[in-house]
Amino acid sequence: MMAHNDIGDVLLELGGRIGKTIEDLFPVGTDEDFLTTPFWHHMGTGGKRIRPALCLLTCRELGGDEDDAMNFAAAVEILHNMFLVHDDLEDGDRIRRDAPTVWVKYGKANAINLGDYMIGRAYSVILASPVDNRIKLKLLDIFTHTYETTCRGQALDLNRRGSADFNVKKYMEIVQKKTADYLVLGMLGGAVVAGVPAEVLDALKHLGSLMGPAFQIRDDIIDLTLGKGRGGELGNDIKEGKPSILFAHALSNASEKQKKSLLKIVRKKREKTNEKDLKTVLQIYESCGSIDFAGSQAEQLTDKAYKAVENIPVENKEVFRNIVHFMSERTK
Amino acid sequence: MMAHNDIGDVLLELGGRIGKTIEDLFPVGTDEDFLTTPFWHHMGTGGKRIRPALCLLTCRELGGDEDDAMNFAAAVEILHNMFLVHDDLEDGDRIRRDAPTVWVKYGKANAINLGDYMIGRAYSVILASPVDNRIKLKLLDIFTHTYETTCRGQALDLNRRGSADFNVKKYMEIVQKKTADYLVLGMLGGAVVAGVPAEVLDALKHLGSLMGPAFQIRDDIIDLTLGKGRGGELGNDIKEGKPSILFAHALSNASEKQKKSLLKIVRKKREKTNEKDLKTVLQIYESCGSIDFAGSQAEQLTDKAYKAVENIPVENKEVFRNIVHFMSERTK
Repeated sequence: MMAHNDIGDVLLELGGRIGKTIEDLFPVGTDEDFLTTPFWHHMGTGGKRIRPALCLLTCRELGGDEDDAMNFAAAVEILHNMFLVHDDLEDGDRIRRDAPTVWVKYGKANAINLGDYMIGRAYSVILASPVDNRIKLKLLDIFTHTYETTCRGQALDLNRRGSADFNVKKYMEIVQKKTADYLVLGMLGGAVVAGVPAEVLDALKHLGSLMGPAFQIRDDIIDLTLGKGRGGELGNDIKEGKPSILFAHALSNASEKQKKSLLKIVRKKREKTNEKDLKTVLQIYESCGSIDFAGSQAEQLTDKAYKAVENIPVENKEVFRNIVHFMSERTK
Repeated sequence: MMAHNDIGDVLLELGGRIGKTIEDLFPVGTDEDFLTTPFWHHMGTGGKRIRPALCLLTCRELGGDEDDAMNFAAAVEILHNMFLVHDDLEDGDRIRRDAPTVWVKYGKANAINLGDYMIGRAYSVILASPVDNRIKLKLLDIFTHTYETTCRGQALDLNRRGSADFNVKKYMEIVQKKTADYLVLGMLGGAVVAGVPAEVLDALKHLGSLMGPAFQIRDDIIDLTLGKGRGGELGNDIKEGKPSILFAHALSNASEKQKKSLLKIVRKKREKTNEKDLKTVLQIYESCGSIDFAGSQAEQLTDKAYKAVENIPVENKEVFRNIVHFMSERTK
């Protein structure tokens, strides 16, 4: 059993363990350097490897051998980064964690092809897992299902930008698809390797359906308060017209005049959105109480997540309480 | 046993059989229409479904139940089309088979995300194959290996455009990666479902290493003579600076003056390449004998492919002879 404040260190240590597996999957200096060079450029921009760490931790705490989950953990991290590489291009983001994004540094075609290749590598490493065939196929099922659901969520996300009839219900539909299974994918894989029964997996999925949206809502708020590591730039979601919970809430609660102004700004091209626009949107969000609303939604979801932990049919619930706590205190 | 001239009809009939499987994977009118609508737009541009047909035919002719190979056949077709969706964006191609490409009609972000989703669907349908776990994992291994190798070839292809030290050896490296395993992927999957021993798979891979490049070389030639269904437009490879066998051969055989002129033209942006440029390149290719060289390379590879068929350790070699003949007479 560990205290709340220890789990960060445990996850950091576990996340570091997949390094070797990923290095073996993308060996530097091969004749396919057009793939490994941009891959390592991207990976060099940082990332805390929370998802793979959660995979190893869950496997261990549920009685499995965490070494058997190493390949799946690496696959989860590769998937996460593959989405970042493609999303940066889809969103036109030029900077990630203070470095140029892959498409900016290596061109759009290389960014698309690298992401495609990364998916292949993720499947390769799962296929090479040291587990029996039944477990391996279960891992592939979970991985594929989550991958597809995330793409479905991304499709909704991309096509609801600046949409006049966007609302909190539609927001929740997107985040359920984009973040629920996705956030717990590593945990599910770790649990599968540990050989838990189906009810445990269902309970973990339920946990994801609460923890994932809570995480995303906090991320939406942070975009307005701390920035997301793009040179400290605030308000990226507004510039990209992203369907955030703030946008969803404000649209349903603003005056006609505010609504018109809000839509006009989020529909502008990102490079045309100026500081005055951001200020206007912030004022609308504040006058509609959207930021408070978002904060309380995140809190409610986290409370529910704590309750959901109590229903996971395993002895060792403490690790999941710690995970909920940990995730509620941080973002991407 | 069938005659050469029958195989086209057989493949057409077999290719049609995967229609239902693909329709079930991309049901029209769901709330994920941002994925199914662009998918069916793309699929509506045609395609002869040769690859899945080869899968079913190989399975049947090697003694398997072709219904068991249906899912893999569908996956091969989805993979092929996923690459087309992403390649069109990577290459900046605006027209495919006389219709706007997905990125032109639905935007770049949707084209990237659709391709990603298609990969997920391809894995899903393989995972749902009605075969035992061992066979299923073998199918997943082959599929993943080929998918990755194709991405590796694409990386070389993308980064060797307009390269001054390109040559026939480097060309062959690209096409081995991009077309060898890829062209016989369906056949390999059909053979795996039929339960053939490893030596048969190796022999089929060897066949691919001859048939694939022959196919690609003919495709390179066709770009200069018939066009590739982009409104009958000729010389797309030149406009895109693609590392074709003609470019490779001419670079090593042209005078310094010709070489300079050739590089200047292929490095131009595609919209800047005019008819006079195309004519100049054609003249260089002709004066270097590059088109004749390409034609004879394709013929030699096809001859070797016929010989390789005789070494496939199965009773029924006739079907493979027919396939080599069929592939030598057509392109994408």
